Amino acid sequence: MVSDRPEVVTLDRVHALIKPREVIEAVREGLIAHARGLVQSPMPGLLTFEDPLGDCHIKFGHVRGEPFYLVKIASSGYRNERLGMSVNDGVVVVLSAETGRVQTILLDEGWLTAWRTAAAGALAAQALSPPELGTIGVFGAGLQARLQLEWLKEVVSCRCVVAWARRPDKLAELCQYLEKMGFDARPVSNPADVVLQSQLLVTATVAKSPLFSSQHLQPGTHITAVGADSPGKQELDPECFARAACIATDDHMQCLAFGEFGIAVRAGVVTSSDDTSLGSILAGDVTLSRLPSDITIADLTGVAAQDAAIASYVTRKLGTLEPVNLN
Amino acid sequence: MVSDRPEVVTLDRVHALIKPREVIEAVREGLIAHARGLVQSPMPGLLTFEDPLGDCHIKFGHVRGEPFYLVKIASSGYRNERLGMSVNDGVVVVLSAETGRVQTILLDEGWLTAWRTAAAGALAAQALSPPELGTIGVFGAGLQARLQLEWLKEVVSCRCVVAWARRPDKLAELCQYLEKMGFDARPVSNPADVVLQSQLLVTATVAKSPLFSSQHLQPGTHITAVGADSPGKQELDPECFARAACIATDDHMQCLAFGEFGIAVRAGVVTSSDDTSLGSILAGDVTLSRLPSDITIADLTGVAAQDAAIASYVTRKLGTLEPVNLN
Repeated sequence: MVSDRPEVVTLDRVHALIKPREVIEAVREGLIAHARGLVQSPMPGLLTFEDPLGDCHIKFGHVRGEPFYLVKIASSGYRNERLGMSVNDGVVVVLSAETGRVQTILLDEGWLTAWRTAAAGALAAQALSPPELGTIGVFGAGLQARLQLEWLKEVVSCRCVVAWARRPDKLAELCQYLEKMGFDARPVSNPADVVLQSQLLVTATVAKSPLFSSQHLQPGTHITAVGADSPGKQELDPECFARAACIATDDHMQCLAFGEFGIAVRAGVVTSSDDTSLGSILAGDVTLSRLPSDITIADLTGVAAQDAAIASYVTRKLGTLEPVNLN
Repeated sequence: MVSDRPEVVTLDRVHALIKPREVIEAVREGLIAHARGLVQSPMPGLLTFEDPLGDCHIKFGHVRGEPFYLVKIASSGYRNERLGMSVNDGVVVVLSAETGRVQTILLDEGWLTAWRTAAAGALAAQALSPPELGTIGVFGAGLQARLQLEWLKEVVSCRCVVAWARRPDKLAELCQYLEKMGFDARPVSNPADVVLQSQLLVTATVAKSPLFSSQHLQPGTHITAVGADSPGKQELDPECFARAACIATDDHMQCLAFGEFGIAVRAGVVTSSDDTSLGSILAGDVTLSRLPSDITIADLTGVAAQDAAIASYVTRKLGTLEPVNLN
C-alpha cells in the first residue's frame, strides 16, 4: 500500500507566495464557476460557542474538473486578544478528487479566508462602484477592514478613506496603518459622516445591528457588506435595500439564510428574487447599466468556491499536488 | 502574539495508543451525551464524486463542557485499490473550545472513523444481542467487517462466525484473518445461510440494495447495520423493521435522512417515531425487556459525538491539549 503523508505547509510559506492581483483573478474565476453551477458546495457547517464567545465555519467544495477538493476550517475566539492571541485560526485541507487522499494541509491560521474575502470585496467594488470614486468609507478596524482597503488598491485608484470603528484606539491604529500604505485616511466619530462623504462603503465589522441609517445614503453609492457571515450578525439598515438598483449576492441561499439580503427580505423591504449573482455580473452573463445616481449593494457571505480558488492557487504555486492517472 | 503551531500526529502514534476496550467506553459516553442533547453536532457535510467514485464525510461537534471540539474529514476513493492505495483517508482537527486555536491535527487516515464505528457496533451488540449467542453472521469483507468482529471480541464471548461477501477472494481472506484472531470463521456463498444460522448479524458493506430477505430472519436475532451512511446505500430489507421489537438509532434525524430506518419509514413499514436512541438504551434512560423471540435492529450512521469521544480519548492520551485559563 502506498501511504504518502500529506504535506503540511505553514503560514509563512503560504504568505510568501500570495500575490493579491493573482488571487483576485483566481477568486473571480471561483465566483463565476459558482454562479454557473460548476461547484459542488453544500451548505457550510457552523459551530458556535457562547462562553467564551467563538465560532467555527466549515466550508467544503469541489469545482467540477479540478483535480482536488477542499475542506476549510476557519475558527474564531473573540476574546483571544486579551490572551495575546489572534482572533482567527484555521486549517485548509486539500484532497485529491480522484483518490480522496489528503494531499496538503495548509496551516493558514485563517488567512486564506481573510484573503479570499478581501479578493471578493475588491471584485465587487470593481464591478459595482461608480466610476468617479472620490472617497472610500470603511466601517470596522479589524484585520478584514484593513485587508479590504489593501486589496482595493489593486483595482481602484482612489486613495482617500474615511473610517469609523467602535473602538477609537483601534480606529486610530487603522488610520495610521492606512497612511503607511499610501492612503489619506481620516477617522470620524460619527458613522453618518462616513456615509455622507463616500461613494464606496465597505462594512467589515462584527455588528449585530445596523451601523448607519439608510437616510444618510447618498445617490450613486456602492456598499460592500462583508461582516454578516452567520445568523445574528447585521451591518446594514434593511431600508438600504429598498433604495438599491442592484443587489449582488455571492450565494443566493446563503445570503437569504444569514446575510444582509435575507434580513431585508424578512423585513419585507425586498423580495427573495431581487438579487443578482455576483459571479454572473463578473462573468458578464448579466449586464449592468449603472446610472450615476444608482445605489448598489454587494452582500458577501463567503462561498466554498472562493476557498477552492485560493486553495487551488496556493496548491499549484506550492507544486504539492500530484495528479493521479487512473488509466 | 502567541502563535503556537498545532501538533501534527501521524497514524502510527495514534495507532499505538488505541485500546479497544477504553475506546468502547469513551464512545459509550459520547453516544449517551448525544442522546441527552449535550452535543452540538449540526448535520454533517458530504461531498460525492462520480468518476472515479468517491466521497468525503465532514463531521464536526462539541460535547458541552469539553475543552475542545473537532472537525473530522473522512474521505474514500472506491477505486484506490487498483492503485495500491487504501480506500479511506482522513484528518481529524482538534480545536480549543475556549480560543478556537487549532491544537492537534491527527493524520488518522480514516482510522478514527473505523474504530469509533467498530466501538458503536460493539456497544449495540452488547446492549441488544440475545444473551445466548451461538453464531455471529457478518456481511462484507472490508476493513469495517473485520473491525466489527475484532472489537466484538471485547464484549461478547461467542467466537463462531459465518460470513458472506460479494467477492469470494476477499471473503476467504477475511475468514483466514478471523481464524488467526481466534474465531471459528466459515465463508458461505448464500446470504440466506448467514441469516438462518446467526443470532447476531452485522452488515458492513457498501450495498445499495437489501443483502437478504426478511423472511429468513430468525426470531431472537439482533441486526447491527453500519453500511448505510449516505443517501443511496441500503443493506436491509425494509420488512425486517416490521418484525423488530426494538429499533435503535444512533441519531434519529440522520437515520431518517440516510439510514436503513429512513428507508423503512419511507416504505411505510414503520413510522418515524418507532425508533429509540441507542444512547438512551446505553445510559439506561430507556429500559429494554427483551423477549427471547424478539428481533432487534441497530441502525448506525455515525455521529460527531463518537468522533469527539475518540478524538478526546486520543488527545488526552497524547497530552497535547493545553487548556487555556481565561480568568
